[in-house]
Order: sequence, then structure tokens, then C-alpha cells
Amino acid sequence: MRQPIVTLTTDFGLADHFVGAMKGVILSIEPRACIVDLSHEIAPYSIPDAAFVLAQAYGCFPPGTVHVAVVDPGVGTSRRPIVAEAARQFFVAPDNGVLSMVYAQQRHKVRAITREEYFRRPVSRTFHGRDVFAPVAAHLAHGVKPARFGSLVSDYVRGGFERPVSRGELRWTGCVLKVDRFGNLLTNFASTEFPDLETRAFEMRAGPRRITSCLDNYAQGRPRQLFVVAGSSGFLEIATNQGSAATLTGCSAGAEVSLWLG
Amino acid sequence: MRQPIVTLTTDFGLADHFVGAMKGVILSIEPRACIVDLSHEIAPYSIPDAAFVLAQAYGCFPPGTVHVAVVDPGVGTSRRPIVAEAARQFFVAPDNGVLSMVYAQQRHKVRAITREEYFRRPVSRTFHGRDVFAPVAAHLAHGVKPARFGSLVSDYVRGGFERPVSRGELRWTGCVLKVDRFGNLLTNFASTEFPDLETRAFEMRAGPRRITSCLDNYAQGRPRQLFVVAGSSGFLEIATNQGSAATLTGCSAGAEVSLWLG
Amino acid sequence: MRQPIVTLTTDFGLADHFVGAMKGVILSIEPRACIVDLSHEIAPYSIPDAAFVLAQAYGCFPPGTVHVAVVDPGVGTSRRPIVAEAARQFFVAPDNGVLSMVYAQQRHKVRAITREEYFRRPVSRTFHGRDVFAPVAAHLAHGVKPARFGSLVSDYVRGGFERPVSRGELRWTGCVLKVDRFGNLLTNFASTEFPDLETRAFEMRAGPRRITSCLDNYAQGRPRQLFVVAGSSGFLEIATNQGSAATLTGCSAGAEVSLWLG
Repeated sequence: MRQPIVTLTTDFGLADHFVGAMKGVILSIEPRACIVDLSHEIAPYSIPDAAFVLAQAYGCFPPGTVHVAVVDPGVGTSRRPIVAEAARQFFVAPDNGVLSMVYAQQRHKVRAITREEYFRRPVSRTFHGRDVFAPVAAHLAHGVKPARFGSLVSDYVRGGFERPVSRGELRWTGCVLKVDRFGNLLTNFASTEFPDLETRAFEMRAGPRRITSCLDNYAQGRPRQLFVVAGSSGFLEIATNQGSAATLTGCSAGAEVSLWLG
Repeated sequence: MRQPIVTLTTDFGLADHFVGAMKGVILSIEPRACIVDLSHEIAPYSIPDAAFVLAQAYGCFPPGTVHVAVVDPGVGTSRRPIVAEAARQFFVAPDNGVLSMVYAQQRHKVRAITREEYFRRPVSRTFHGRDVFAPVAAHLAHGVKPARFGSLVSDYVRGGFERPVSRGELRWTGCVLKVDRFGNLLTNFASTEFPDLETRAFEMRAGPRRITSCLDNYAQGRPRQLFVVAGSSGFLEIATNQGSAATLTGCSAGAEVSLWLG
Repeated sequence: MRQPIVTLTTDFGLADHFVGAMKGVILSIEPRACIVDLSHEIAPYSIPDAAFVLAQAYGCFPPGTVHVAVVDPGVGTSRRPIVAEAARQFFVAPDNGVLSMVYAQQRHKVRAITREEYFRRPVSRTFHGRDVFAPVAAHLAHGVKPARFGSLVSDYVRGGFERPVSRGELRWTGCVLKVDRFGNLLTNFASTEFPDLETRAFEMRAGPRRITSCLDNYAQGRPRQLFVVAGSSGFLEIATNQGSAATLTGCSAGAEVSLWLG
């Protein structure tokens, strides 16, 4: 029988005990689990960053995979834990928009998790990764059906960052989903929806900077020049050659990016 | 049959080959092992930091788990390798106090590891993680009984940092166990033993700073104010709102913290 | 049946989705795979660093292990993917020299991977870790024979950094393979081939600095003194006591190091 896969995406970092504690809880409930770290270096509290990493990776996993995303600035408040089904996989997360890009890409069903018998008891005020999300994910991996955790809901949270918003003719406002390790700004402008930037006039704004060039690759850029590239993620990136676009623009995950097409 | 779990806690970082080499050794001896990283970002040589991380996580793992902790400033000296049994789990480590918090929390037995046939040969002078601790852990995971590795000892090392020391009436001296990724100072003052700080006069000293406020949560703090909170770890933390208490106090893992109750 | 082991060595870091995506691809093809991270913190684009980490770790793994090394500055160009057999293990990598130290240590066979039916389709221009190397490694782990991926080649790339080059009598030019987390410079001078530095006159140059002392251990060094030690890696290291030799010399992975013996 196939070992069930559980992936983890958090902003917990790797220096503390948080990730290890979650894994212990999962293995205590489902000893056959194969646990895969997507990333624990999500920018602290950044829901767009986590949503982006999860959206880039889940398509590589087989049916039945359980994905856990814990970026949870609202831990301890009344925000609900949810379990979503999409692409024949499962997603366990706080209801704060972290699954927005999955919702945008896939038909999906979302349930509010209310059956507390699947939680680790007592549930702490601040560590629901260990006490709520890890045990629910392990029970899903073990074969418990999503319907057992709670009822379908339709008022779940969408982040609003899954695509840019039209602001009138040929104008949009979007955002930075993630800053990658090189300082490139990964925006929520899909390359396929804005395909001709190399050959038409445009202006993209990020922080105080205006970008008007779209290049094929990083090496074409002049020193300290900011430009747009269509990156491997499927989204437009703001980049600079051998430098950090994040530093040059002062932007981080969540920052506003606007586009005007000529 | 359940796959045996081996957890790793080290100060090796993730940029070098050390952790990978240990995992290869473990899998060569026990191919079914499920290896879980607790943390490899322990502050270099910090025994309190490793002891804290291990103590926060082991309780989440099932019986039979083998925990390996390698923070080993004495590698190459005569310090002994030990195997401890506590909470129906196993702990493999150098005898330098890194298991102190397990000792303080659980009934336990400790053995000095003397049977070198369980080591990887030749044993290097500087990399006992690979040559001693990993193979012993793998043999334990494979089912070798602790008594096979050596005899019980009673003179094993306790770190002295597992709880604060009384310095007279209503005065204690303790220490910082860990600095978390946000710069909060996790002390060895258990929240349950010092429960009323919100409502009584007290003074805590860390480095040159005196802290006299205990708040319910981080968000209540004024900018650059140092305060005490009862954190999710079960210990009092010294924190500041949206900043680093480690920077404000100049304290790192192992630093002295004193408390006076009014 | 033994679970097949796949190790990963990349310069992808842990903040992005790249490593998780590779793992999803591997587990989709070989659900029983045990995936081990050697390191994802290889210095960006540094082939010597990756070659060194892989060479230090593979000997700890059992026969049949599949090692994937993706440090790939030439991704998208015509550089070939290759699979090598050595030490009864498998190595999957771009043909850019990243396997040089394995070649230098072991009898080996190298094949150019040409059978695209083992790739993930479509193959992206920039992420061959996911689309080429991960699926080939998974098929190897699943039992596909190396000969199925392509024909033997003899013109594969050797890095030239696997050992120093003689520059005349008692003179050699070598390089820094890796800077470890403490800032020590790990050179490609094998300790066994240059064994007597403690007792004979020598001069080693790294950046603008000349080093003429060889010490038994780090603690013997004076503050800010640069010296040579025979490290646990089997290679000479340039180090300083409680400081960073990388900072003092300005050297990073790949930097030239020369040796003159008196």
C-alpha cells in the first residue's frame, strides 16, 4: 500500500521545535506517513508567500496527498480551520486565504473543521500547527473522509491576491506574491494574460520605481536596471541583473504593483 | 510493522555534508528508518538551546522513537557517549548535559556507551555524529536493546540550566535557554512555578536591562519596551513588540537571568 | 523490500518551492522513495561546493542509492544531463563537472541521458531539477537500468578542481572547494598528499594573504591569525581561531589557493 504523503508549508523557520513537534504528532497518528517539507521559510505571517509556494508545488504531487499550510497571524482568534478538496488532493489550513491560488486554479470544496475529537488535547492558544492542523492532516492521510471533519462552507476567505484587479482600461493593480532568494519580485500578473510586454509600451510600478523594459533573461539587464521577465513560475517577475529587485524597490511580499499598458 | 523513527538535533547547519552523512549511516544500518529533523540550527555549541528544542518536541513522538542530539563542544575529548531511556523513548547524545531537561521531566535510566562494535570504524577525531551517535541510534531503531551498548551510570552530567536556582527569599538566578527566530528570550523559569507576574511586583534582569512588566501578549507592548510573557513553551519569555529582545538586552542562549519577587 | 534512497544536493535554498516540487515528482514516480537532503544551501552556482558536499557524503550511503546534484548554471543551454555509476551507486546531474570528485575517487561509467520519455513533459527552460533530474532519479530508484537512459560517453566534463595542479618543483595551484558555516576555507589539497606541514617550511596563498603555520586544531591559533589545519574532510583547511578565514582572505568557493613547499 502506498505510503500517504503529507506536505508542510509554514513560516516557523528551522531553528525552533515547531516543525519537529508537528511531525511527531503526524507520525503518532499515521506511522506510515511520508512527510515532505515544501518550505518553512515563508516570510513571517505572509499569506501570499505561502499561497504562492503551495500553488507552485502541489501539482507535482500524486492524488491523495495532504498539504498543510500554517501561516496563521490569526491563531487564537475565531478564524476557522478548514479542509479543502481540489485536484484530488487535500489541503488543511486556517481560513485566511492561504489556499486562494488553489481555489483560483481548481474546482474545490471547502469544509470548516469543527469535530474537535480529531484535535490534540488540550488545544493550546498559540500552536494550532501541532494541536489542530497536524492531527487533522494525519487523520486525512490515515483515510478519514473530509466530511467527517465538518460541513461544507461557501463563505471561506479568498485573499484577493490571486490575480490583479482591473482599474479601468489597460490598468491593473496587483501585488508581490513572493520575494525569491535572489531578491526577484514574483508578482501575481500571469505571464499568459500579459504576454506581449517585450514588444509593447508598458509601465509597471513597484514602490517608488517605474519599470518600462521587459527582457528575455536576467543577463540582458544593465547594472541596477529594473526590468520585467516572464519567470518559470508562470508569473511576471520584477528583477535586476546580479542584484536584488527587492532592495532597489523597497518591496516585500504583499507590496502593491500596478501595470499600465500603452 | 511500524517504521522506526529517529530524530536529529544538531548545531551542524544545513550548508555542509554533516547531516546527510549521518542519515546515510542510519539508513545503511536500518533501511526502514523514518528520519525526522528537529533542528540543525541550534546555536553553535549551545547545550541549553539543544536541550530546550529536544524537550519541547519529544513529547509529540510515539513510544520507541530514538532521539539523537549532537551538540558536542567536547568531541575528541574523554566525554562519554550515552544512551538514556525515558518516557518509553530513547535518547543518544554526548554526556554533556544536553539531556538535562528530559532528566528533569521524566524517570530515566542512563548508560555509558562502551561497546565499540556498534560504531562506524574507524572513529574520526571530530565527527562522532557520523561515527558514534548515528550508528548507535540506528542499531537502537533496529531493535538492539540499550543494555547491549554499555552499563548503567549514575554520574552522568546535568546541565544545571533546567530550572532557576534559589538565591534567598524570593530571589532566583536562571538563564536564557534559547533565542527564538524573533529574538524572544526563552528563559528556564517555568510559567506554572512563577504564575502571578501580571498582578504582583517583580523585577527580572537580563544583561543590563531591568524588566518589571508582564503582559498577556506581544501586541500590548510599547515600542522598544521589554516585558515578560508566559509563552507557549511553558516558560517565561522576555520579549518586545515587533522587535528583538536579544538585541535590546545583548543576551544569547546561556545568558544569566535573575528574578526578584516583591 | 528495501525502500530506495534518493539524495538531493542543490543551490535552491529552502525558501522557495523548488525542492518540494522535485520531491513531489519523485514520489509520484516511486512512491516508496526515501528522499534525503544532503544540502540545498550550496553556494549559488558553485560546482566545486556541490561536488565537495556530495563527495563527503555518498560513501555513507548503501549500494543502490541514487544521488541527484543540481547546481546548474547552464540550465537551458546544450549541456547534457548525465547518469553515472560508481561505488555501486547512481549519480544524476548536469554534465558540468559536479561529479568530478566522484570520478577522481571511484571507477565509474557515465551515460548521456537522451531518452526523453523519462522526463516530465513539457520540459521547462529553467527548471530541469523538476522536469529532468528528479524524474530520471525516480525511475532509477524504481529499478530502470542506467543503460535505458542513454549511451556511454567518454567526453564528460571534469571540473579540474578535484586536486591541485603541479606548477613546477614543490609548487601547486589549487582552489577553495567550499566555505563552511564557520568561514573555514576547505581546499582541494588532500591531507594525505601534503602530510608534513606542521614540521616543514611552506607558504600557502589565498587572496592577498600568505599562510605559513600549520596547527593541530583551531584553539591553538592567535586572534586573527590564519593557519592551515588538516580537517575532518580529508583536505587541508585555511582557518582562524573563532573567526572567519573567508572574511580575512576575501575568498569564496572556487578561489585560487597556491602552495609552495620549502
